[in-house]
Formats: sequence, C-alpha cells, structure tokens
Amino acid sequence: MRALIIHGKRDLRIGEIATRPVGPGEVCVRILRGGICGSDLHYYQHGGIGEMIRIREPVILGHEVAGEVTETGPNTDGIKVGDLVAVSPSRPCGQCAYCHEGLPNHCLNMRFYGSAMPMPHIQGAFRQELVVDVGQCVRATGLTAGEAAMTEPLAVCLHGARQAGDMVGKRVLITGSGPIGVLTAQVARFAGAVEIVVTDLQDKPLDFALAAGADRTINALAEPDVLMGYQQCKGYFDVHFECSGAQRALADGIKATRPRGTVVQMGMGGDVTLPLQQVTVKELSLKGSFRFHPEFATAVELMQKQLIDVIPLLTHTYPFTEHEEAFAVAADKDQSMKVQLDFA
Amino acid sequence: MRALIIHGKRDLRIGEIATRPVGPGEVCVRILRGGICGSDLHYYQHGGIGEMIRIREPVILGHEVAGEVTETGPNTDGIKVGDLVAVSPSRPCGQCAYCHEGLPNHCLNMRFYGSAMPMPHIQGAFRQELVVDVGQCVRATGLTAGEAAMTEPLAVCLHGARQAGDMVGKRVLITGSGPIGVLTAQVARFAGAVEIVVTDLQDKPLDFALAAGADRTINALAEPDVLMGYQQCKGYFDVHFECSGAQRALADGIKATRPRGTVVQMGMGGDVTLPLQQVTVKELSLKGSFRFHPEFATAVELMQKQLIDVIPLLTHTYPFTEHEEAFAVAADKDQSMKVQLDFA
Amino acid sequence: MRALIIHGKRDLRIGEIATRPVGPGEVCVRILRGGICGSDLHYYQHGGIGEMIRIREPVILGHEVAGEVTETGPNTDGIKVGDLVAVSPSRPCGQCAYCHEGLPNHCLNMRFYGSAMPMPHIQGAFRQELVVDVGQCVRATGLTAGEAAMTEPLAVCLHGARQAGDMVGKRVLITGSGPIGVLTAQVARFAGAVEIVVTDLQDKPLDFALAAGADRTINALAEPDVLMGYQQCKGYFDVHFECSGAQRALADGIKATRPRGTVVQMGMGGDVTLPLQQVTVKELSLKGSFRFHPEFATAVELMQKQLIDVIPLLTHTYPFTEHEEAFAVAADKDQSMKVQLDFA
Amino acid sequence: MRALIIHGKRDLRIGEIATRPVGPGEVCVRILRGGICGSDLHYYQHGGIGEMIRIREPVILGHEVAGEVTETGPNTDGIKVGDLVAVSPSRPCGQCAYCHEGLPNHCLNMRFYGSAMPMPHIQGAFRQELVVDVGQCVRATGLTAGEAAMTEPLAVCLHGARQAGDMVGKRVLITGSGPIGVLTAQVARFAGAVEIVVTDLQDKPLDFALAAGADRTINALAEPDVLMGYQQCKGYFDVHFECSGAQRALADGIKATRPRGTVVQMGMGGDVTLPLQQVTVKELSLKGSFRFHPEFATAVELMQKQLIDVIPLLTHTYPFTEHEEAFAVAADKDQSMKVQLDFA
Repeated sequence: MRALIIHGKRDLRIGEIATRPVGPGEVCVRILRGGICGSDLHYYQHGGIGEMIRIREPVILGHEVAGEVTETGPNTDGIKVGDLVAVSPSRPCGQCAYCHEGLPNHCLNMRFYGSAMPMPHIQGAFRQELVVDVGQCVRATGLTAGEAAMTEPLAVCLHGARQAGDMVGKRVLITGSGPIGVLTAQVARFAGAVEIVVTDLQDKPLDFALAAGADRTINALAEPDVLMGYQQCKGYFDVHFECSGAQRALADGIKATRPRGTVVQMGMGGDVTLPLQQVTVKELSLKGSFRFHPEFATAVELMQKQLIDVIPLLTHTYPFTEHEEAFAVAADKDQSMKVQLDFA
Repeated sequence: MRALIIHGKRDLRIGEIATRPVGPGEVCVRILRGGICGSDLHYYQHGGIGEMIRIREPVILGHEVAGEVTETGPNTDGIKVGDLVAVSPSRPCGQCAYCHEGLPNHCLNMRFYGSAMPMPHIQGAFRQELVVDVGQCVRATGLTAGEAAMTEPLAVCLHGARQAGDMVGKRVLITGSGPIGVLTAQVARFAGAVEIVVTDLQDKPLDFALAAGADRTINALAEPDVLMGYQQCKGYFDVHFECSGAQRALADGIKATRPRGTVVQMGMGGDVTLPLQQVTVKELSLKGSFRFHPEFATAVELMQKQLIDVIPLLTHTYPFTEHEEAFAVAADKDQSMKVQLDFA
Repeated sequence: MRALIIHGKRDLRIGEIATRPVGPGEVCVRILRGGICGSDLHYYQHGGIGEMIRIREPVILGHEVAGEVTETGPNTDGIKVGDLVAVSPSRPCGQCAYCHEGLPNHCLNMRFYGSAMPMPHIQGAFRQELVVDVGQCVRATGLTAGEAAMTEPLAVCLHGARQAGDMVGKRVLITGSGPIGVLTAQVARFAGAVEIVVTDLQDKPLDFALAAGADRTINALAEPDVLMGYQQCKGYFDVHFECSGAQRALADGIKATRPRGTVVQMGMGGDVTLPLQQVTVKELSLKGSFRFHPEFATAVELMQKQLIDVIPLLTHTYPFTEHEEAFAVAADKDQSMKVQLDFA
Repeated sequence: MRALIIHGKRDLRIGEIATRPVGPGEVCVRILRGGICGSDLHYYQHGGIGEMIRIREPVILGHEVAGEVTETGPNTDGIKVGDLVAVSPSRPCGQCAYCHEGLPNHCLNMRFYGSAMPMPHIQGAFRQELVVDVGQCVRATGLTAGEAAMTEPLAVCLHGARQAGDMVGKRVLITGSGPIGVLTAQVARFAGAVEIVVTDLQDKPLDFALAAGADRTINALAEPDVLMGYQQCKGYFDVHFECSGAQRALADGIKATRPRGTVVQMGMGGDVTLPLQQVTVKELSLKGSFRFHPEFATAVELMQKQLIDVIPLLTHTYPFTEHEEAFAVAADKDQSMKVQLDFA
C-alpha cells in the first residue's frame, strides 16, 4: 500500500510500504480521511519542531485519521467489518507508572502516530491501511469520514478545557484562531463560558471563531493594544487558552487574566520569557495541556449528538496524491482552516 | 401598597402595607412579575417546611421577582429609573465570618426574602413596590419581566452545577422534573454534559425535560425498576442532581452513580435514610447545594445572550389578585411548570 | 501449611492447606505477623458484615500481614530472599475501566484477601506462607514485623485523609477511637491539622487518641451533649472523619461541621438515617473512603522515616494457635487496641 | 516616637514621627520585635524591587512585627491592654470585588505595611508604636515576642503550601534556603510531605534546612548537575516550591517535577525565561503564591501548640538603633538566617 513519508524538510513523498496481518485484538482500517495538523506542517516546513524534535529518519506523517474497518481479528467485540471508526493515535503501554495512575497521556513508552520525538520515530497514519488495536477505534456511525477525522483535534481541546476546570459563567480569552483555537472556542461555549474573546494576527481565521460562537474577535496585529483594556484592575478573564505558540500572546494573556485565574498552554514551544511577577502576584495557575485520552471517545459522541459541529472548519480536501498542494494550502491561514487528505 | 401575606396554612390574603423612603445606595422597584417557588407552595399548603420552619407570624411571601426602577437614591451608579431589573432576594450581612470567606450564601445573619426560618420572619417580595440595595439589582435589558423573574431559580441551578464541578463529557441523572429539575437539565447541557436522564413520577413535567434537551426521561412510577439497569457494574452516572426531595429518588440515584461520582442534593428535606455503604464503597461525594450568590448576575447574562432559554417553562401568569387560582395551578404538576404572578 | 479458616459465626479453625509453586513475577512470603481487623472480627462474631456480606463457604481470614521472603520467581527485581515485606491485600485486575482510570480500589474484579463479598470468597492471608505478586510487596527494612503488618490500616487512613483534601490549619473531628480512628488522628496531625477532637463511647480507647496527639477527647456516652457546643453558628469543624460506624456519631458530626466542610465516612454500615437538610443547607461534602492503593507504599515509608509511629497501638500479640483468646481480646476495647497473630 | 525610615538606596535613618489617637475598633501596640524581610533588604540595598517598585518618597520599612497592647479603643473585644499580639500587615479594604470573593490578598485597595508599590507609599511598622485595627491583632500568649514577629513569614509559607494542595505522601523540592525556604520545608513536613529536598548556593543556609527536617540538601553551586538525576523519566518531585527568585532554580525545578506536578512560585521577580514545553508536555501547574490572609491566625496557633518551631531561625537581634549592623548581617546569608530589630 502507499503512505505519505517525510524524508526531511520539504521532502514529502509517496512511498510503498508493506501490509501486516491482523492479530488478536486488532482490526484493519482502510483510511478514508486524514487531517493535516500543525505538527505535520512543522515537520514539512522546518524538518522538525523546535531544536529537540528533528526528523532523523524517514517517517510516515499523520495522526488525525478515520476509516472503514475491513477485517477484524479475534477478541474485537464491538467493532464489525464495515464500521466507520475514528482511530486514536495514542498508544500508551498500559504498564508504566503513569498508565497505572490513570494518566496514559504521560505514558513513559508512548507510541503516538507520526512522531519524531523518540528514536526510532513512530510511523504515522497517513497511509491507505492501518492495523490497530481495537481499543484505538471508536465507532463513528452517523458521522462523515471528514468529521470522524476531526476527533483527534477535538479531543485535544476537550482535554484542554478539562485543565481549566468548571467553566460555567467564566470569561475566556483564546489567543490563536487556528483549528485548535476555534475548536477550543466551541468547547468553551459548550462548557458554559459566558464570554469568549479570540485573538489572531489575521482576519480570516477570526471569521471562523466568530461563526463558532466567539463574542468578540481581535486582530492583534491591527490592534496591538486592545488587550490592554482587559488588563485594568488586575485583569478580566477567568481563563486564557493559549493556542498560538506566540510568546507575546502568552504574556498579554497573563496580564489580562484576573487573580486566581487559569492560563492553559495548549501550543508547543521552546524556552519562553514570561512576566512571572504577574503569575506570582495574581496567583495565576499556568497549566500545560498535552494530548488527551478518555476525551477521544467523548469527542465522537459530542459530534454524533450534534452538540459540537466541526463541519464548518473542514475547508479543503485533497486526494493524498496532491499532498504538495494540500500542505501549501494548509500553511496559508488566509485560505484554509482544516485541510484533510483523502486516502480512499 | 398591596402585598401577598400568608397568615397560616391555606390562609393567604392581600394586605395593605406601608411604603418606605429610598435611602443612599437604595432604589425603589415597581414589581412586575413574581414566580411561585416550591417553598411558597409549602408555606401555603402546609404552613411551613418540615417541622423546623413554621409560619409563626404573618409574612409576605415571594423571592423570585423582577420589576422596573421608579426611583434611585444617592450612590446608585449603574442603575437608572426605567431599568428593568432582576432583584436578588439574597441579603447577606457582609460582616460575618462566612461573608469574609466569600461564602455569602452561608451568612450567619442572612435576610432572604419571604423566609420563615428566622424569627421575626423575613418579609418577602410579593408586593407592588420594593425598596432594595442597588447591589441586589441586576439590569435585565432585553429580557421580558417574566424571564427576569426566572433569574433566581436559574441562579439556584447554576450554583448546583458548580457543586458538581467540571461537567464536560459527563453523564448526568436528574431526579425530579419540576422547574429546578428542568432548569438543571438545561444547565447541565449548557455546562457540557454528554448524556442527561431525567426522572419524575408524572409524564407532563418530563415533557418539559425532553424539550429542554434531556436524552431520556423516565416515569419512575410507571417504570420503578428502570434505574436498576444503570446500577450494574457499580453504576453509570458521573453526576446525580437530586431535585425531588424524595428519599427513594436519592437512594436509587446513589446506586446508579459510578465510583468517585458526585450526588448534588438540591432539594430540601428532613431526616433521610441513605444506603450509606454505597457512598463509602464507591467513594461518592454527596454534596449539598444551597441558594447562590455570584450566579445571580450570571443567570441574567446567560438569558440575555440566549445561551439559556427559560421561556418554555413559563406556563401561567395570573394577576396577583387571583392568587388562589395561581397557587392551585402551581401545585398541579400535570398542568403547570412555572406559575408567575403579575403585580403591575 | 496451616491457615486460620472461618466456617461460620464463631467457628474459626486451624486447617491444613496446600502450598503452591512460585511463578514468574511472584515471591513466596513466610508470614510473620497478621493483624486482626474489624472485618475479621465481624466475620467471627456475626458470620458476616451487614446483611449482604455473609460467609457462605469456608474462607481464610486476614489481610493485614507482613513476612519474610523465602523464594523469588523470575522477574522479581527489587525483592530478595530474606527481605521483610509488607504484603498488600489489594489485587486489582489491571484491565477493567476503573483500573485504567487509575482507580484500582474500585476494580470491578478485585480479589482482596479474606473477603466474603464475592462468591467464591477470596481466601485470606492468615496462613504460614503466601505466594504473592511482587507488586504486592513493599520492602519494610528497618521496621519490626509488627509495624510492617500495620501498613494496611495505616494506608486506609492515609487514603481517608486524601479524601478530605488539604488539611493544613484545619479543625478535625474523629468519631470512633479504634485503630482506624487513632491512626486517623495521627495522620490528621501529620497532615497539618491544627485541632483534633476524638470521641468514643469508652475511655480506654480515648487514652490512645490522646497519646497519639488529639487535643481533646470526649466520651460521648458519659457526655452525650458535649458535641452540641460545636454545633453553634452552623458548626465548628472543617473535617469530620466518621470511624465508628454509628448512626448517632455521623449525625452529630454533620451538625458540628461548618458550612462547606467535609465528612469522610471511613466505617462500613448499611442503611443510615441522616440529617440531610444539614448537608444541603451547609453545603457539606459527605464522602466515602474505601481501601487504598498508592498509600500502601507511602505508609511503609512514613513508618521507616519515623514520621508516624504505630508501635503504641500494638497492644497484644498471640501465637495464631491461640486465636480464640486473640479474637476475644481484640473484641474487648477496654483491653486492647490492635491485636496481632504470630504465624512464625 | 521614633521610626526607621528609608529615604533611598542605602539611606536608612531613624526619624521622629507623630503618634495618633486610638479610635473605635483600634488598639495601640508598643512594638517589641520587627523582623527584616527580603523586601526590606531589597529596598535598602537597591532602592526598590525590580524596575517597577521604586522608593519615590521616604517610607517607614517593616511588616513582620509583634508587640504589647498599651491602649484599646471602643469595640475591641478579645484584646486587652498587656496582651502580646502578632500584628498582621495586611489591610484589605473589605469592599472591593476580591474582598467580596473571599480573596482579600488580592484586594484592589490593599494597604500592606512598608510597601513602595502604590503611590503614596504605605508607611510600615518599624516604629515604636502602632495604632492598628483590632482585626489585625492575633493574641500570641505563650510565645516570645521574637516568635510572634515570625507570624508573617510563617503565614506566607502556609499560604504557599495551600497552593500546592494536599501534600500527604508527596515528594517536595524547595529551591532557596532563606527564611521562606526553611519555613516552607517545616510547613511541608508538617503538611505530610514524605521527602523534602532543599537547594541553595551556600552551605550555611542549608544547615538550617537540614535541622528543619529536610531529607537532603544540595549546594547547587558546588553540585550544579545533581538535580539532573531527578529529571529522569519525566521528573521526580510532586511539588516544587521556588523560594530563591533565581531563573535557573525555577527552570531546573520544572525539569525535575513529574507530570501533573505543581510548581509554586513564592519569590518575586521580573520577566523570566522558562522551559515552557516542559510545562505543556508534563501538564505541570505553575502557580503563584502571594501573601496570605486566614493563615496569619493559623500561624500563631501552630507556634503556640508547638507544632512548628521557628526559634532556631532567630539568629540575631539588634536594637533598632543599630539598624546598619542589623541590615548588613541580614544581607550576609553565611552569617544569619532571620535578623530581628528590638524596638522596646
């Protein structure tokens, strides 16, 4: 079968890889859709993420996928051939200290699809077929394949919201209006936020945030000082979700967060300079959010019950053979929100 | 002016009471609507609530009111004559230990409208005019007077939801489908619950729960054992809101709540027999919820932003002079959900 | 080898049982000491606990044991022949939903030593030799065998304290001054409580509580109304640990707990009548505490570092052949605190 | 009377100031002891703290004081002439949003003694007499004046511990072994920590940490890489209290904190560069801790009950007239831990 393999910066090629037999507790999934994530883009544009995570050997990209079950091994109750399934890219070991503590996203031996973090790299899911553990599959009956492939980023945002705790009646700032920022806005509204403000450096992504229910959007490039109004009297927002990875966005949001508020860092980044005295004096909680686990199944259920609608974010779909165009469009935030590849 | 005064069990009369001048920090509100609450009904039907709270002197009923500002004293910035305001019945002292801890609903000197708990009783808000502290008023621009008078019960349910903590992706059981139960269903959905089951002993109230977004309703009289299905494998629900005051409902819900789940007791009641071993062995948290404080302003804002819609619950309005008919209809759950009195 | 087998109410006999070979990941422990727990006593005195848990087939008692490793199987790194080990009686399956959530004490397939809860019953640890998973063993170097056999009840109390949350500067009420109550007093002091009051119906157990650091002890039989002083102004204690299993103790403690306080139910019991209105109006949290998991290793470490001293509680030790005398003394709270059996 | 007034960097002088009459709810305290805090030292050595807080007008230093009541105004029940009292330097307004939320340490109008943060500056407590609100006084019967003057820094550390939540069985890292670091070690032990490691750049302060109960101390100058051992497998400590204000200490501690751990920033500082990816990927909570409120009274009670002993930290006392020597010794961590001034 064919897969989308990155060999280095801007060196993405279709390659032929072997299939493998389906064992006990496993199913084979014919991949239908795969969403291009920010980390896929980073690998493509920069050959890595930051200085620590570099592509040191060819690796199949992709971790936001859904497809149709074509074969089931023994002990795979609950999944049948023909099922549309969202496939979780998270494969914790189940044996380490963190798995035992109920924190599988901190597994010491995690094999997350399409990651250049460990060596050898973990091969990803941008491929025509994937043999997976039955526990990675969530039946997505009633959803389109495109929606099902949005399960992963939605799960990331649900997990982020959980870090913020109870959000009923809270005022929320979201910096960065890419797919993670916009989904976070949807989740914040769904979780009971009473006011949601979203910032970005471009107008087009902010339109999506507005459509997703944001009360106000701010182009922080055009109006660099508008957040200062929220910084009076020690700050305004109860929760700040930082989804841009920009140092300035984090610093401005910290200043605009009220005493005892929470700042959830969703995006990645290296060393960052913070106004730490603001954190101390206002007793803020700056929390990281990393991946997800139980939220993956929750994400499917929320889409099925139409409590969260991700369809407006699905702006482009390309055959996986047109990956060059697809990655170019995904990188252009003035054109696209979420770009998916069609592997069918 | 005239007020609705209860003198004893089933002895509710319109009486004439004096007006009082508006002082600094105070405003006068012409009452437009007043909702009949379960406690008003208890006073009317039973002359008290349980054995401890009895009507021992005439007391004006009512604490769910809204009206129009007719006069403002000095130092009442933010409120103008003509404003529609929701009036909070909660008047903590601001000086006791609990007020200082930020827990005004536990104020040692609380003067909550229309309560026979302390002696002398606290006179209520079912009257044509009310002089209140400006801090009790929340501007309700854009709402109808009927909606504004729903602020209080909605605040009660928002406060209850807060006791349950983060609700995103949670499965929720609500026992009792009166106004508090139905509003709690709306709040649970708004707060991110993924599945909501509501029980009652009558069908009519359950229709409101369904319309409010419940996934399933159960007539526990017709199907007394249907909750047993949720009691397998140590229980199913993450959160149980007990809104009926019935011992059986609480016991059944405890059995249907999964380990480490939360049971929020919203309703009042006296001594109750519980399956305590279930609480111990499953490490449940049984929490009380009592009144509200910051949630009062939140409730108005949520209605103004149309994030929560209370209008379907407003089934009946009567001129306050027809209080007898109004209380009879309010007591009949097959006819009414929320009955309001018109004081205009 | 010989074991202590209960056949029914007051029918405890020494029986001969087979040894079994040591497999991979397993070690054989020669039992040195085994503490008699309240549940062992219940089985002995009443043939069960409540109406649900009954002895329906012969079962070896005991779950508070420590011993010396006599043989190790493959893959048992960290444990050597000759080690003194505390043996955890908790054997979760590691595969069910609760194990995956990091809540092994709620395992759906738990095999806790010496329990008549499931059928067939789970055979216990009052025996001369026990083959266990290496993960059940915590090296107890530096402790006596008697101390090591106190690991289990100490872990129960550490787990209970965790339900109460941060205890620094808190005022704590403990009802019931048996081993669990006294250890809870020690843990509460160790966890930062500023004031500890312990009640019981007998004087002798209260002496142990006083020695363990309680600020005040109350004989609730001699002074039944003394807790009423703590019930003024909505209550006094931040945390109430109910360790007696008595309905009156729970009700009195609820009344003496201040708004937003926590009541931790440690003891077992059937249906219990509660002053529920107190829970609601004061927004108490009534939480169950059940067994333990990570606290087992913590308990050993705390004793090793001499941060908690259990030796004063070890009042009696009998050869296991004198079990009749041992159980009689264990049942007499005027004589004993913790009675252990010597299996060496 | 005389007071210790700073006019600018290294310009500390004794000046004569007026007394003022005692009003209702006020008492006059003859100051006996006043501890020199790190902020007092900063003002003296640098003329301010960071770039934002500068001495722009003469200001009396000092906020860690205790003394004897010499006069009481009306409505000062509970305090008598002759009482030894610890005087809280925290004077929130009681009227702002944060005071109403029960967060007086975030008061928008705080008047904390001896602070150059607002303009005009808030005059401090290094003076012979001080008229204070009765609510600022906590009776310190049984303590020495020196101990009573340690109430403030102990309250700071108790408040910091509260940010970290339940500490029973936790492993704790403390960076910085000045008075705040050493008191935090004592509080961590008192709050149930099972292992405490303290770092500093000098040996002498670490001796105090060891005496205070630390399990291990590390001179991070002599052994710069020793913390790296704790950074394996994603980190070792559950809680890191940063008490040094050094960027390197914060960064090293973040790397040594395990997933879902908490980093409490106690010290002040300006912009700081952090390994943010560590915070994200390990989902750490970086929390600020700022001053205290209810912990002030708790601190006195803990010292009275001898649950925490601060006496070993009191290394030097000077008559306030010898302030030059006192400040020099306080600045020399090889000589002193806590230096107090005698105002009697």
